[in-house]
Amino acid sequence: MYDLTTYITELCRAAKSASRSLAVLSAAKKNAALERIARALEENGAEIIAANSVDMSEPGVPPKMLDRLKLDENRIRAIAAAVREVAALPDPVGGGERWVRPNGLIITRERVPLGVVAMIYEARPNVTVDAASLCLKTGNACVLRGGKEAINTNRVLAGVMRSALAEEDFDPACISLVDDVTREGTALLMRQRGLIDVLIPRGGAALIKSVVENAAVPVIETGAGNCHIYIDKYADLDMAVSVAVNAKASRPSVCNAVETLLVHAEIAEEFLPLFAAAAARYNVELRGCERTRAILPGINAASDEDYATEYNDFILAVKVVDSEDEAIEHINKYGTMHSEAIITRDLAAAELFRRSVDAAAVYVNASTRFTDGGEFGFGAEIGISTQKLHARGPMGLAALTTTRYLVDGNGQIR
Amino acid sequence: MYDLTTYITELCRAAKSASRSLAVLSAAKKNAALERIARALEENGAEIIAANSVDMSEPGVPPKMLDRLKLDENRIRAIAAAVREVAALPDPVGGGERWVRPNGLIITRERVPLGVVAMIYEARPNVTVDAASLCLKTGNACVLRGGKEAINTNRVLAGVMRSALAEEDFDPACISLVDDVTREGTALLMRQRGLIDVLIPRGGAALIKSVVENAAVPVIETGAGNCHIYIDKYADLDMAVSVAVNAKASRPSVCNAVETLLVHAEIAEEFLPLFAAAAARYNVELRGCERTRAILPGINAASDEDYATEYNDFILAVKVVDSEDEAIEHINKYGTMHSEAIITRDLAAAELFRRSVDAAAVYVNASTRFTDGGEFGFGAEIGISTQKLHARGPMGLAALTTTRYLVDGNGQIR
Repeated sequence: MYDLTTYITELCRAAKSASRSLAVLSAAKKNAALERIARALEENGAEIIAANSVDMSEPGVPPKMLDRLKLDENRIRAIAAAVREVAALPDPVGGGERWVRPNGLIITRERVPLGVVAMIYEARPNVTVDAASLCLKTGNACVLRGGKEAINTNRVLAGVMRSALAEEDFDPACISLVDDVTREGTALLMRQRGLIDVLIPRGGAALIKSVVENAAVPVIETGAGNCHIYIDKYADLDMAVSVAVNAKASRPSVCNAVETLLVHAEIAEEFLPLFAAAAARYNVELRGCERTRAILPGINAASDEDYATEYNDFILAVKVVDSEDEAIEHINKYGTMHSEAIITRDLAAAELFRRSVDAAAVYVNASTRFTDGGEFGFGAEIGISTQKLHARGPMGLAALTTTRYLVDGNGQIR
Repeated sequence: MYDLTTYITELCRAAKSASRSLAVLSAAKKNAALERIARALEENGAEIIAANSVDMSEPGVPPKMLDRLKLDENRIRAIAAAVREVAALPDPVGGGERWVRPNGLIITRERVPLGVVAMIYEARPNVTVDAASLCLKTGNACVLRGGKEAINTNRVLAGVMRSALAEEDFDPACISLVDDVTREGTALLMRQRGLIDVLIPRGGAALIKSVVENAAVPVIETGAGNCHIYIDKYADLDMAVSVAVNAKASRPSVCNAVETLLVHAEIAEEFLPLFAAAAARYNVELRGCERTRAILPGINAASDEDYATEYNDFILAVKVVDSEDEAIEHINKYGTMHSEAIITRDLAAAELFRRSVDAAAVYVNASTRFTDGGEFGFGAEIGISTQKLHARGPMGLAALTTTRYLVDGNGQIR
């Protein structure tokens, strides 16, 4: 008889066991497995697309989700190319430092894999392959719980990757898919202490909240991005328009897009009409405070709830403030410590902003959209941490590792 | 009317506010405040000892706790000296790296304080000053919840430190003591998301478990140390006796003391009587498996529960194993990933142990007792992390910091 608790525990136990053998493999072997996975994805494109069609044709999938869910030959090629890019990155595992204590003890701090990384994410099948390849590269087994709308696609993707692993004599449990996509299964997954070393939720505020409330394993919170741009009274207004429009409209669905614009009262009358005209070209809906609406009549009112919302859409809240302090207070109240920007030509204003805003990335005169592992030069990204422990901001390969101390003696006692 | 929720929330809110001003202070200012605290502790010794006498004379304090609880002039001098040692350490805040992206964005990764650090610990008043000084040094406000048996002492210690802070024009809320030592207050403290940046529990397994189960803020687990020493068949038996006795008897109450000895069958008959004789000099109670008891008749039997127990006492479980693999399996089953040691002259045995044991510190031919910030050369220690995120093993000052990215542009968009 199927028992959910047994299923989840055994799945994690198998991943844990696989992680022990994976942790000691050379970079060459792990890269060979990644290359084999890339090839297998390309060779099994038809089967992947067939499974994806089943997911796409399920009734009730929100239209907004369909584009993220869809795989075609081009996307599969891109996914395989991303796997090869991960293989080409330097391996962070094994490096370290070493020192000798006065009593002769030799201490080595060695970089090692975390062990088993669990990921809970939404209906984006590319994340299944991304997460698996980043974990494999860093010597971690992974337990993947993707969105239920992508389950058929994920089954085939995981199957293809696991066969490729087996061909390279890896334990296929290095890539473990949670086939049970019930809420109960996910809740159990979050509580596998001793089997899961870190849980990384990637998704909206509701998912992050549920994980934070319920998880009993260590968590890296990611992705909640209620980002602001403050247009200072000394801003270059052309730059301000260009950066603000870019930060909202270039890709509104991502976490580094701006959600609220804070505009200094002294330049609001000049700036807001310029900005509104530029934003209108992207059909951005503006929601403003009373003073914004006095300058831009006809736009909707912004409520406190608007200021707290990550729209992930072509919607932007706008608020006129009397001072930089008021802007900073607003940001520290509503922000999610992700990415915050000021546009100014004034050194003191820039310094005050840097000093007072508590966020993973603080920008002066640039778009918040740059908070990204690739844009920061990290080569790959497992997510963007909005917490302060372990990793903050875009997480590269090193964020999937930890350290341990090797201590060598000749009988030292204390 | 007193409302517990309001009390805890307001306490944390005041600490959060204080942390913002503290975060930007120079090392010189923070060190001056530490010096002022050290002096104030020395000058107010009589008041501290008087409060401590009240705690010591409460009925029902377990005798084992009395020694940890007690303060006298010597101990206060030692506590003040420790504060001055912390002041003398290099300040980790503010350092970082910087690089320029092809698009001209200048990215700086800056080391910054965590913000508000909450500590929950037992009835050791020295921890109140230790924790406060390490947090102050690293620019963090702290919220301290010490054991209820030490509440009178802690009130005076916190009062003395807060007055010293006020004299240096610091916000006294930089050092906040939770005056309500009920379970409900502690449970509320663990859930102050947005106000507490990290929670560090220091105490026994029950405290750690409660925190892991109930906390909604990020946690660094510390201190649970079910440590093992494996005596390999190729061990130098004199060294094995010396190290094992030291690891058990030099200070059994601490987390890096050994709790179970695993002995290879081939040398058990020679080793165990030697060891038992040496351990007897410290009145160590041995509890053994059947094979151990066949060699050392008269000792008690060890159960599975014994193997899972961190005695923190002059008690040691002993098990004879047929192979190193069996020892490693035992360690990975019962260990708490703290400190694990092998005694051997065999290179392959040492390598297998290092490769297979998953712990913060893995020793070859030395006592587990060296897992300690001071012994590792870190200068100070806020605790020993047994988790893999953020910090692992002894945590020095850097573990009380995080990083953030400052990104400077001239209008870059993506």
